Amino acid sequence: MSDEVLSVTVTAPTNIAIVKYWGKRCTKFNLPINSSLSATLSQDQLKTTTRIETSPTFEEDEVWLHGKEQDIQKNQRLLNCFNNIRRLARKQAISGGEGSADQIKFYSQKVQVHTENNFPTAAGLASSASGYAALVFGLGTLFKVQGDLTSIARQGSGSACRSLHGGFVEWQMGEQSDGEDSIGVQIAPESHWPELRIIVLVVNDARKKVGSTEGMQSSVQTSTLLQYRSEKIVDERIKQAKRAIIDKDFSLLAEIIMKESNQLHAVCLDSFPPLHYLSNESHTIMDLVHAYNKATGCTRLAYTFDAGPNACLFTMSTFVNEVAWLIEHYFPVENGNKIFRGLEVDPVSPGDEVLNKLDMEINPNVIKYAIHTRLGHPPKIESAVNVS
Amino acid sequence: MSDEVLSVTVTAPTNIAIVKYWGKRCTKFNLPINSSLSATLSQDQLKTTTRIETSPTFEEDEVWLHGKEQDIQKNQRLLNCFNNIRRLARKQAISGGEGSADQIKFYSQKVQVHTENNFPTAAGLASSASGYAALVFGLGTLFKVQGDLTSIARQGSGSACRSLHGGFVEWQMGEQSDGEDSIGVQIAPESHWPELRIIVLVVNDARKKVGSTEGMQSSVQTSTLLQYRSEKIVDERIKQAKRAIIDKDFSLLAEIIMKESNQLHAVCLDSFPPLHYLSNESHTIMDLVHAYNKATGCTRLAYTFDAGPNACLFTMSTFVNEVAWLIEHYFPVENGNKIFRGLEVDPVSPGDEVLNKLDMEINPNVIKYAIHTRLGHPPKIESAVNVS
Repeated sequence: MSDEVLSVTVTAPTNIAIVKYWGKRCTKFNLPINSSLSATLSQDQLKTTTRIETSPTFEEDEVWLHGKEQDIQKNQRLLNCFNNIRRLARKQAISGGEGSADQIKFYSQKVQVHTENNFPTAAGLASSASGYAALVFGLGTLFKVQGDLTSIARQGSGSACRSLHGGFVEWQMGEQSDGEDSIGVQIAPESHWPELRIIVLVVNDARKKVGSTEGMQSSVQTSTLLQYRSEKIVDERIKQAKRAIIDKDFSLLAEIIMKESNQLHAVCLDSFPPLHYLSNESHTIMDLVHAYNKATGCTRLAYTFDAGPNACLFTMSTFVNEVAWLIEHYFPVENGNKIFRGLEVDPVSPGDEVLNKLDMEINPNVIKYAIHTRLGHPPKIESAVNVS
Repeated sequence: MSDEVLSVTVTAPTNIAIVKYWGKRCTKFNLPINSSLSATLSQDQLKTTTRIETSPTFEEDEVWLHGKEQDIQKNQRLLNCFNNIRRLARKQAISGGEGSADQIKFYSQKVQVHTENNFPTAAGLASSASGYAALVFGLGTLFKVQGDLTSIARQGSGSACRSLHGGFVEWQMGEQSDGEDSIGVQIAPESHWPELRIIVLVVNDARKKVGSTEGMQSSVQTSTLLQYRSEKIVDERIKQAKRAIIDKDFSLLAEIIMKESNQLHAVCLDSFPPLHYLSNESHTIMDLVHAYNKATGCTRLAYTFDAGPNACLFTMSTFVNEVAWLIEHYFPVENGNKIFRGLEVDPVSPGDEVLNKLDMEINPNVIKYAIHTRLGHPPKIESAVNVS
């Protein structure tokens, strides 16, 4: 190997859980108490970009997030990702007959990682999922690791294993104690359902929040409802969600999405002390979704919330301009800024008949802005320098 | 019987559920899906006063609430209470050998009912419990009905059956389809635990709410967690709560009270569409309670919420002045009105050590006012004119 710097730049998507992950059966390996299912979002709107460089002259692994160096020695999960990728690279090299001393040495070379999200980290948009997916995918590319990386990404952040595939992805909980079978598996690619649209609503809220890792630990220890959910409810919901996806049955999928979000937050409230991630603003958004569906007589729109107040709405391309109109109408922003980012929208009123039935009040400053996006593809290589 | 007007005036208390009633297995007879347990509050602070008059000259039953006549023909539950009391009176008269024609006729005489609460009906303070308890107790007194009236009160409003006893009361769900064994039973009288104090916090909130009858029907039909709760969790909690009451173990009781409140609202959120009775203000109050308990290292204070945002706090006389100080300090009212009503408080700071650990912000206008009260006695007769 030469002394020159090798470099790869990769991007990875975020994902939004349709059937929720809440609770670990093993914190060391990030193993969940139930399987989950998610939609991978388009990287045109939301992505993490990670550049990884390596050189024999580097003395330490270094990670820079938005230009700020991270203390990686205090981050066991990050260290696990580095260690596991390097171990796998060595193992594959040896078993593939390429286990020369140089090659093995290369896999021990230190790296510098520079990572950036094109969305606010604090927006609660699963930046750890896209972040760890990009890191593991990038390291895997640099070290030419073959095969499934989702089990390694999972050890960085559970939901990151779902960001290594495009479209719809199931995180199968697995049974093994080492987590080797706790992996992300694609259910359908993004091309299966191009009409599906996602609108992320970033809401106005400045409350302190319990982090999701800490939150789910508390739920596992104190909620008397969580175990019942994970054992008796989730599997059936995953089955239903898969059927809805395969059949492109939006009404069914929408109902599962909302019920899953509600049950996640029900379990949070059943924890002790209770966890409350939904704000009044979140509830106002939920109210609009239910009012719109009721007024139109069919399920055109769904909401889902994770460990924060921001909403992710699911709808279809046929309805997205109506939904955009409703958002701009009922949730105006007082500074007059443009609300929608991302894919174009052309807001259209749903008409007086629907509006008369809606019975909603105009609520200024519920949201800061909205991002209109769709399903997206898996991580990809942006550039690779001197990596053959 | 003479033509003269007979009259009784009775009062009845409200009660606050410690283990919650949420869900009916039979709407006709108001039969619950699980037993529940409550504390009856002192009538010195919160009561319904009901005057019932009867005369052979009255042509219709009439009910006046706060001077406004009610349309009782549209209120089947109210009619059920009238019918059941009269039926029981006739039955007892006949079986007691007093079944003269005059006596039987008397029990069919029409009544005029005038009822008033000494607290705002809209304050969400279980006015239907004290209201139906007063009505049924008053009619029972007028018509000289012997024995248990809780099964009849239950048919007016489920929780009313708990307001016919003082102290701590269990509403046993029963097994019979006619509900005859679904009754309120006293666990301990108010004199058992005089140190227990209750503070009702009436919060600032004007949102429309789904009524509790409608809400619990929706939960029964749509929540996948409610059935598990009612079948697997509630009985154990009632057992624990009874032990805590008998042992006067405040920490244990406080924890059950909070967990029960949280689980009720978790089930509401798990309903579809979700029910949200807790406001940001409610959550702020919950935060203060947990922060105070954590800062003092013991469980000195508990909250509970029913189908509305108002809080009911439980504490002990030893701590009530500290709690009053915290409420006045963290939840000031901007109009400068006196916050505390009811039993006297003499607010005392818990001291800098506790306050430094609290990490709470001052939140003006979270509450409108607070009522300091204690456990109370069962309904009583205020006056009876020409009723021997």
